Amino acid sequence: MKKVVVKAPATIANFGPGYDTFGLCLSAPCDLVEAELSDEKGISISQKRIEKEPLKSPWRIPTDPRKNTAGVAASELLRLSGKKTGLHITLTKGISAGSGLGSSAASAVGGALAAAELLGIGDKKIILAASARGEAISSGAQHLDNVSPCLFGGFTVVIDHDELDVIKMTPPEMRIVICQPAIVIKTAKARKLIPEHVPTRISIAHSSWASGIVHGMKSGDVRLIARCLQDEIAVPARKRLIKGFDEVRQAAFDAGALSFSISGSGPAVYSLAQKNHSRIGRAMVEAFEKVGVEADFFISKPGNGAKVIRKE
Amino acid sequence: MKKVVVKAPATIANFGPGYDTFGLCLSAPCDLVEAELSDEKGISISQKRIEKEPLKSPWRIPTDPRKNTAGVAASELLRLSGKKTGLHITLTKGISAGSGLGSSAASAVGGALAAAELLGIGDKKIILAASARGEAISSGAQHLDNVSPCLFGGFTVVIDHDELDVIKMTPPEMRIVICQPAIVIKTAKARKLIPEHVPTRISIAHSSWASGIVHGMKSGDVRLIARCLQDEIAVPARKRLIKGFDEVRQAAFDAGALSFSISGSGPAVYSLAQKNHSRIGRAMVEAFEKVGVEADFFISKPGNGAKVIRKE
Repeated sequence: MKKVVVKAPATIANFGPGYDTFGLCLSAPCDLVEAELSDEKGISISQKRIEKEPLKSPWRIPTDPRKNTAGVAASELLRLSGKKTGLHITLTKGISAGSGLGSSAASAVGGALAAAELLGIGDKKIILAASARGEAISSGAQHLDNVSPCLFGGFTVVIDHDELDVIKMTPPEMRIVICQPAIVIKTAKARKLIPEHVPTRISIAHSSWASGIVHGMKSGDVRLIARCLQDEIAVPARKRLIKGFDEVRQAAFDAGALSFSISGSGPAVYSLAQKNHSRIGRAMVEAFEKVGVEADFFISKPGNGAKVIRKE
Repeated sequence: MKKVVVKAPATIANFGPGYDTFGLCLSAPCDLVEAELSDEKGISISQKRIEKEPLKSPWRIPTDPRKNTAGVAASELLRLSGKKTGLHITLTKGISAGSGLGSSAASAVGGALAAAELLGIGDKKIILAASARGEAISSGAQHLDNVSPCLFGGFTVVIDHDELDVIKMTPPEMRIVICQPAIVIKTAKARKLIPEHVPTRISIAHSSWASGIVHGMKSGDVRLIARCLQDEIAVPARKRLIKGFDEVRQAAFDAGALSFSISGSGPAVYSLAQKNHSRIGRAMVEAFEKVGVEADFFISKPGNGAKVIRKE
């Protein structure tokens, strides 16, 4: 085996009440990460364009392997393997960078999984750690809330970031309507808006909503998940970064959404709904357009995580 | 039917990270509440002694039906039923009042369930509401975290106290070692010690521990439950009310406990463990005695909730 291709999906971190802990894997969009053994030591990176460009991205992905999340993740595994080989990575971005949908995490997981496959590393915890180190290059801090659902699929709860202690569960069949506005948010800036303290009653509410979401995931109760998909910590602090947030939220509920929240640190927003998914998506886009913000929407469902789709 | 007897068990509220939301029903000890139709309108109450007195209780249970939790709960249902009858209640306390083991909630649930049975009220939400009103007479505020597990059994999560929105799940087979020291704590005073704000990182940790506990309950993972049975909100604020807390905690862990926490607002403390339950209980008692506090211990398992055990 000299070459592998990995498909690594978008993810919703901070899912509802689970700031810094919950993550949901989506079925699409995905990044494609191709890794090939090379005689030249170290990591090199190139990018491929895809026919359908990902939704408007204001970001450029660095191809310097020390600054690219896929490169850093792959490099970490290369170092661990002790093998005297090189890797060439070709990145095809299907997830819009800076969208709040775990774009940098997907590339990191893709790079890690592809490298692991080529280098014969099977331990998922090692792959998770390498992915997290890769993702940290982009976000500035090691967080597992995007890399975990991207690697494991389904719904994940990070119990301990340092210990790589993650619980995985399989969500019920459901549809998520995701709307991406053309707004630029830096994760580091969004992070600074989170208050250092919260009222105890809000902390209590978050624990009970988080419990409701886990119960809903385990028992297949989408209505319970939607009802508990609330956030009184990150959303109130961050919604000011998303022009038109309140209007878009109202439009989503008016169109039949059961919930509305921010994906990761935004700007993407999403709703759960049992029907009228396209109508909800269009309503969100129109509400953004009314306040002068371009937007797109797509409908996804929970996904199964990153996987090797080709070996040569 | 003229008379019913209900057995209503002890409960652990504030279970680990679930302050004001999680509750676990125990298999024992229980209060016995006997209710009998009477020609005399309104509610009257008497108390029976039991052969084995409950563990040292510093509290007297009022027999004034407007101040007794069973009386208030039963009275609420009598009012709702619109029936022109009276009820006589005989209360046999098996749960030590003021222990932190949901003594007043058990009497309230017992009174409500016995009255509901006699009056032909079957709706559990109405019985829950009446129980909560009864319990509020003792604690000063309407909280569902003891009455819910006592009425429904198993492990309960209160999503919304006002909406009586409660999730119930069945815990795995496990043993809980409970130690009751002869210390007096007033719930209202213990409540005042809870800080108004908490660090956001602690709120995040609580949400992830709460998620781990729910996942553990649903998947039968006792080790995960024990690992997530942590509390950085109530326990640090309240442990000063329990003389010897740190020493008893250490003794429990030294004897093999997997976790250690305060039941409700205390003074009872408890541990989960997979073996050596008696050794852990004795170690707790000895550690309390070393600091001059009398104590007892008992071992319980999750229970199935209040039930009618006799009808005449």
